[in-house]
Order: sequence, then structure tokens, then C-alpha cells
Amino acid sequence: MENNHLIWDEKSRKDRFKNRIFTIQERVCVSPEGREGIFSVMDCRDWAIVIPLLDAPAGKEEASGSFVMVRQWRHGSRSLSLEFPGGVCEPGEAPEAAAARELSEETAYTPGRILKLGEMSPNPAIMTNRVHFFLADSLRDTGSRNLDADEYVDVEIVPTDTVIRNMGKPPYIHSLMAAALMLYMRTGTGC
Amino acid sequence: MENNHLIWDEKSRKDRFKNRIFTIQERVCVSPEGREGIFSVMDCRDWAIVIPLLDAPAGKEEASGSFVMVRQWRHGSRSLSLEFPGGVCEPGEAPEAAAARELSEETAYTPGRILKLGEMSPNPAIMTNRVHFFLADSLRDTGSRNLDADEYVDVEIVPTDTVIRNMGKPPYIHSLMAAALMLYMRTGTGC
Repeated sequence: MENNHLIWDEKSRKDRFKNRIFTIQERVCVSPEGREGIFSVMDCRDWAIVIPLLDAPAGKEEASGSFVMVRQWRHGSRSLSLEFPGGVCEPGEAPEAAAARELSEETAYTPGRILKLGEMSPNPAIMTNRVHFFLADSLRDTGSRNLDADEYVDVEIVPTDTVIRNMGKPPYIHSLMAAALMLYMRTGTGC
Repeated sequence: MENNHLIWDEKSRKDRFKNRIFTIQERVCVSPEGREGIFSVMDCRDWAIVIPLLDAPAGKEEASGSFVMVRQWRHGSRSLSLEFPGGVCEPGEAPEAAAARELSEETAYTPGRILKLGEMSPNPAIMTNRVHFFLADSLRDTGSRNLDADEYVDVEIVPTDTVIRNMGKPPYIHSLMAAALMLYMRTGTGC
């Protein structure tokens, strides 16, 4: 195979830390030239993120619509973050079902249609899982959210061009939302 | 403050695992309603990622140019990944200097100009650090790379529209590269 000079073998792995969200594994790997190295990775379940698109109101069809977003505290950055809805895929749950569930739980909107935009590794260097991106439209507001006891989430409706223009400035700080937005912009509806 | 109903306080923190790349901390935090919870976060140094843009060749100025990319094995995904150059900011090193250094070490190109595209949290839920995104152009090929002993990296020149079209399909699997591309597309030169 043409890329053999780049590929490492795994020799063994060991769990070093475990909580309800992730496990830190140390993996002993062997380089293409036969040298051993230890690499630590974070093993977690897959994630699903969904861009909920509200059409422009009747009479303003020339506008580009809005996203339904969620504002919440994030313990890594110790700051508020304004994001697309998303979360962890439960065991046995399809990513699309997880996306629809998180959308409904966090925002009370249910999607009339949900389309897969793409799938990536959040960080292939140190994370084992995948993140699945969706676009949801024909939304219906059920008026009823379903938050966990430790979830404090505000829902905000933000014009699409405001999100694109401000991504990277607080509170639009989450790189996975920028990745989702890249896939959305590629569809040609966003830029 | 209007967002007080979303903000958590930190009560204490403790290191639970440490290697040369990151530390796993457990943080005891207090919810807006006074309930305690434990949240694990990955603490690491900031990262810098640089999009190296090669102009279209003379006589083909209507083309959109190419990116200088690096193909390497990633131990989290256990797969090859085709990425923009990047890496960890060393202690005391400005993100822009880290971006230029990683570009030169991994690809042998030095930038005539380097522009900041933006800055985000790789994952504000579970990571404490920031990722800084740059665009480099007026590139000069010095012909001399400087890889670490355990780095095996191929350099590839890829047309910009190929990268945009294929992001999310192997080997374009890294979400931070999609986030970088979103900022690039926003500049209006990419879409």
C-alpha cells in the first residue's frame, strides 16, 4: 500500500482514567521504522450536532433565515457558549435519532426533515470517536423541552448571517460548531 | 448580569491524570441553583493551525489556488488524516510564531505573510485550551523540513475546491480543519 511509510501498528492498550463521559487510554504503538512510542487518547461515544434552520418569515423570503441555538455554561472554557444543539449518542442510538432527540430536549423544536451534512473526527490525534453533523428544517415548536437536572440552557433564534459573521468571537467559541457551519456553507445556502 | 441563571461557580479542582500532552482535571462546580457536580476536563496548551495558500500558477489566475497540506497517521482515529499544518504553542511562544514554525517544520514552506483568521475553543465542554487559526500566503519553499523523530508526514498540494468539496470524507476527517476552512470560506476567497 502506498502509504505504508506513514502507518503505525498498535501493540497494546491500557485504561488510565475513566469517568461517565470518557476513558483515557495509553496505547503502545510501533512506528513505520519499528520504534515504540506511547500515545494517550480519549475514548468516548460518538456525538451528534444538528443545525436547526428556521425559514425567513412570510413576506421576507429574500432573507436567509435563522438558526435555533442554545446558550449554556461550558466547564472546559469556563464561559458561556452559543451553540447548535447536540450531545452524546446513547448506546444503540443512531446518530440521526440522537440529533433529533437533542434538538427536541434542548429547544422543544422537532424537525420535519433531517439531513446528514457529514461526519468527522473531533480530533483524530487524541480522540477515538466521531462527530455526526445534521441539518434540520421544517421545524415545529412543541413548546416543551426536556432538560437534564444539571442542564441550564437558553434558546436563542439568531439570523444565519449573524452566526457566520461572528463565529470565533464570544459567545460563538465552539470549533465543532464552526465545522458544522463549514458543511452548511458548502451546501450553498449559507454564503 | 443577565446570564446569571446559566453560570456555574468552581469550588475546587484536582489533577487525575497527567502526561506530556495534557492533564485530566476533576472540577467540583456549583450550579446556578446551588447544586454541586463534578466535571472532568482536559487541560492542555494552546494549539495553532495554519492554512497555507499557494496562488494559482501564472497563466491560470482564474483558478482558486491550492493548499499545502500534510498527511499523517493519527493515533486517536487510527487512520491517516490530511490536514493543514499545526501543533502545540510552546511555552512563551506567540500563536502566530507557532503557526509559522509548524508550517516550516512540517512542509518546508515559510510564509511571506501570515494573517489571523480567528480563535476558538476546540471543545469548550471538556477542553480548557484555545486553538488559533491563521492564513499564510506568499509562500517560499526552503526545501528543508525539520520533523521530530516520531513524525512521519507527507506534504501534498491540493486545489482549494477539492478540499472544500471533500471535507468530511477520508482522509479529510479532522474537524478542526473544517473549522479553519469555515473561517477561510468566510473571507470570500473560498466560496
